[in-house]
Amino acid sequence: MRRLALLALLLAAAPAPPRTSAEVLAATTAADWRAVAPEAMLVMTLADGGRVVIELAPAFAPVHVAQIGALARAHWFDGISINRVQDNYVVQWGDATESRPLPPGTAPRLQPEWQRPLRGLTFAPVPGPDGYAPAIGFVDGWPVAADRARGLAWLTHCYAMIGVGRGDTADAATGGELYAVIGHAPRNLDRNVTLVGRVIDGIERLSSLPRGTGALGFYETAAERVGIASIRLGSDLPIAERPRFEVLRSGTPAFAAYVATRADRAEPWYVTRAHHADLCAIRTPVRSTR
Amino acid sequence: MRRLALLALLLAAAPAPPRTSAEVLAATTAADWRAVAPEAMLVMTLADGGRVVIELAPAFAPVHVAQIGALARAHWFDGISINRVQDNYVVQWGDATESRPLPPGTAPRLQPEWQRPLRGLTFAPVPGPDGYAPAIGFVDGWPVAADRARGLAWLTHCYAMIGVGRGDTADAATGGELYAVIGHAPRNLDRNVTLVGRVIDGIERLSSLPRGTGALGFYETAAERVGIASIRLGSDLPIAERPRFEVLRSGTPAFAAYVATRADRAEPWYVTRAHHADLCAIRTPVRSTR
Repeated sequence: MRRLALLALLLAAAPAPPRTSAEVLAATTAADWRAVAPEAMLVMTLADGGRVVIELAPAFAPVHVAQIGALARAHWFDGISINRVQDNYVVQWGDATESRPLPPGTAPRLQPEWQRPLRGLTFAPVPGPDGYAPAIGFVDGWPVAADRARGLAWLTHCYAMIGVGRGDTADAATGGELYAVIGHAPRNLDRNVTLVGRVIDGIERLSSLPRGTGALGFYETAAERVGIASIRLGSDLPIAERPRFEVLRSGTPAFAAYVATRADRAEPWYVTRAHHADLCAIRTPVRSTR
Repeated sequence: MRRLALLALLLAAAPAPPRTSAEVLAATTAADWRAVAPEAMLVMTLADGGRVVIELAPAFAPVHVAQIGALARAHWFDGISINRVQDNYVVQWGDATESRPLPPGTAPRLQPEWQRPLRGLTFAPVPGPDGYAPAIGFVDGWPVAADRARGLAWLTHCYAMIGVGRGDTADAATGGELYAVIGHAPRNLDRNVTLVGRVIDGIERLSSLPRGTGALGFYETAAERVGIASIRLGSDLPIAERPRFEVLRSGTPAFAAYVATRADRAEPWYVTRAHHADLCAIRTPVRSTR
């Protein structure tokens, strides 16, 4: 009897068998996901018809996001091109002629939005260590670094994140020059440029482009540039044409379980478990709902 | 007089102005570099004529490196193909038919070489933290993790590192199936597969390939596969055709200065300095000497 009770206690205390990421995601419910708002979505159509979908992050860069939205609504991006593809670093697009006038009502220089108050955000920390910031975690599915002592939070340069190219000064940015990270996370760029979003679909259309052979990976001839037919806000597309995506909510038991599956892979192929996943190795799950 | 002495003391104690990576490399001497040995070099020629050069790491995986050399000398790799390109992860090549017999004298299964004794290596640590290992640094320019308490060292899955694909068991590897890392460092693979080298030239020929649309990024049709004309050891090529590369020696003042430039970027464009570079963000410099 006593032995049975002890066995029952041991069984109750035994950790749950490890699960795979696929198993954790399969066990989520609709409430574990949030829809990407059409007004926070950019749909980029390449000249070859390929589509890249970006979620914008107005909570972190409201002024830049608003300006990018204004540029999209003015069709300012239509006919620009991808001009730079630097291996293990970034794909960058903008007006190669640097002569296209900004539409009325937009600002010629934007003040940096490199960090914001931590207050007001639901920050779900993940286990460190992280050499770049005192704390790391997720806010609404965004990979975020934080400094609690100073009350600050900022987006981080993980794979597929979107930043706003700038010139030599902090405010030399218009939102008309954007880049996507296509390599090992260049966290050295954190708090040097304004991050505004993340590619949630079609990153492979950017990451597989031929690398530029000029300095910094710029294409050396106009013929190499990759045309962009248009960039539109999701909310400016007819409802039937809007992409529909959902992002796993962070700060939930499901997200915490997912993070744990990244640190310790349960697939039987793994012999050595890492007991750790760095911030950019976690990658917030996204799913299409159409 | 006293003031002058104090001033001189202050000047002597002042830290050197930060330098850029380019400045540090420009100040190196010939002795700061080591040549890549022809017998530790693989030259892969793609069907389109593109060349990819790999340095092998016999100090970490002597048996695998010897077998890969035997396969190359037997021309076993000629006519195989790249069969898998998974975005932000790996490019993998091998015999898509899985029917090509191994040449005489090679082993059908190789015991894992996932780690080795730290003893006998010149380990140059770099500042942490690192969530995956107790210590990190470089050995002869290789990115290495170490556990001093257990006296072990292992190669890490940084961008462009080359690993040996295996089946479900630890010894289900022949050296005939290889992959290169083309995304954010998948350190969860460390000590689960044998790493045998690093692409030192031409990684962009692999990283820019179209992504496979099948499970795990495998190409779904034979037509999508990318042919490999040949893979040869550098030492088996005519001397005039051998690529010549040098790697910055680690464990030297020049390498330490280079690491420091990765942690704190001196270029005036940077406003916020990270004071840190993670192991895979450091990337050992390589230069062509022909």
